[in-house]
Amino acid sequence: MKTVSTSKAHSGVQGVYTHASDSCACDMTFAVFVPPQAADGPVPVLWYLSGLTCTHANVMDKGEYRRMAAELGLMIVCPDTSPRGEAVPDEKDNWQFGSGAGFYVDATEAPYAQNYRMYSYITGELPALVAARFPADMARQGIFGHSMGGHGALTIALKNPERFRSCTAFAPIAQPSTAGWSRPALGKYLGADESGWRAYDATLLIADGHRFPELLVDQGTADGFLDEGLRPWLLEEACREAGMALTLRMQERYDHSYNFISTFMDDHLKWHAKRLR
Amino acid sequence: MKTVSTSKAHSGVQGVYTHASDSCACDMTFAVFVPPQAADGPVPVLWYLSGLTCTHANVMDKGEYRRMAAELGLMIVCPDTSPRGEAVPDEKDNWQFGSGAGFYVDATEAPYAQNYRMYSYITGELPALVAARFPADMARQGIFGHSMGGHGALTIALKNPERFRSCTAFAPIAQPSTAGWSRPALGKYLGADESGWRAYDATLLIADGHRFPELLVDQGTADGFLDEGLRPWLLEEACREAGMALTLRMQERYDHSYNFISTFMDDHLKWHAKRLR
Repeated sequence: MKTVSTSKAHSGVQGVYTHASDSCACDMTFAVFVPPQAADGPVPVLWYLSGLTCTHANVMDKGEYRRMAAELGLMIVCPDTSPRGEAVPDEKDNWQFGSGAGFYVDATEAPYAQNYRMYSYITGELPALVAARFPADMARQGIFGHSMGGHGALTIALKNPERFRSCTAFAPIAQPSTAGWSRPALGKYLGADESGWRAYDATLLIADGHRFPELLVDQGTADGFLDEGLRPWLLEEACREAGMALTLRMQERYDHSYNFISTFMDDHLKWHAKRLR
Repeated sequence: MKTVSTSKAHSGVQGVYTHASDSCACDMTFAVFVPPQAADGPVPVLWYLSGLTCTHANVMDKGEYRRMAAELGLMIVCPDTSPRGEAVPDEKDNWQFGSGAGFYVDATEAPYAQNYRMYSYITGELPALVAARFPADMARQGIFGHSMGGHGALTIALKNPERFRSCTAFAPIAQPSTAGWSRPALGKYLGADESGWRAYDATLLIADGHRFPELLVDQGTADGFLDEGLRPWLLEEACREAGMALTLRMQERYDHSYNFISTFMDDHLKWHAKRLR
């Protein structure tokens, strides 16, 4: 692991790091905020998964998480959203596939299966690195994210409820297997047989018996992707049918941007901190 | 004036606007955050002047001012740092002059005098536009900024103490007329006769009799520009000699980045709000 930069922020340290990833067969960059409480011992770890087109940097720059994370004593880890590099197959003009659009799946199809293994990267390789190199209490982990990263957070929490004590999402893609902006990507990463897609669809994971104690989802009503891409009512329906606790808050006139995320960041951090204590 | 974008944030509205500027003889872009209190009537206006290489967007993205501005009921106006465009003379590879480096002066020298009139723009044209088009209480204005923009805020406040009730700065250039990264720019904008530079140097304005009731300055001790470019002790000395109140806070291990600015943003907003009530 190499340190790209560190900078004091809100009495903690915001760092950016790179490492050669086995899962993704390329160098991967990620950001970690270490709160000041880490001086006294390991702190809980909160994973933030970003949306389409983002790198580790977008939420680091615009998410406004440091003040409250420093107050609550949370480490915030912000991974990239896909493998990257000259050797990684990509569709350069397609923002919904390839670079910036890993969808947190392990691809099974050539030529993507070698690099696009973001599920393994986020759930296996990067946690091992974080545990080894940062003052992280891995017994206390939470996960959240935005849009494609909200989908990632929900699906990863549903498949690993023993690992995560808390899960929330900003404007998540509730049912990627039927949404226009995610179906083509899932087809290319996972193949034409849609039964394999169920492992990466929050609503279908719930239908298939996966459970998480409780979820918090914020969704802006002025979000341009609400009706076609996000559709939180499908998650609401799945949770209702499964008897799973979901707090879904429709936030009037908020859009899909970091202005929406940063507005409700404090609420989400407090939600996680309460469950990670 | 044209609206580029608006987005709800922290119950207020973050907007970006453009207009054809007479002062700068080009189109200029600026950002305005209108807090929710504006629904009940005009609100105080706080001007934020950015540093070298920045546009209106850097502090809008990374400054983390909206949560507290919304709480305190402050409008935040973030202008660009220079004129821009094909027709504007520039030195493309020089980050300390031209685009992104207007230094908030009115240039007197050809070929810069036609466009580089940021002092007139910030103190005349843009306030008139803001007063006309936004719910701004122009009887209650404050000003702050970072680095080159800290220099801008200090000099503009010192020259217009009747207009501004409050002035603070993050890591300001204290004495631009003798600092390596600003001397070449002042020479090109203002000519070889350095007597004309005194109107744009906070320490020399104070030496020449200009006063402001009290100043707050934060400066990181790990700031790479501290010794050569910023030198807050020169401001401290000028204030001491003039009997002017300065609160200078040296912040241990903070650098020159937005991580430093955002960490102390709340303090500055509270300082201004107290004096703008």
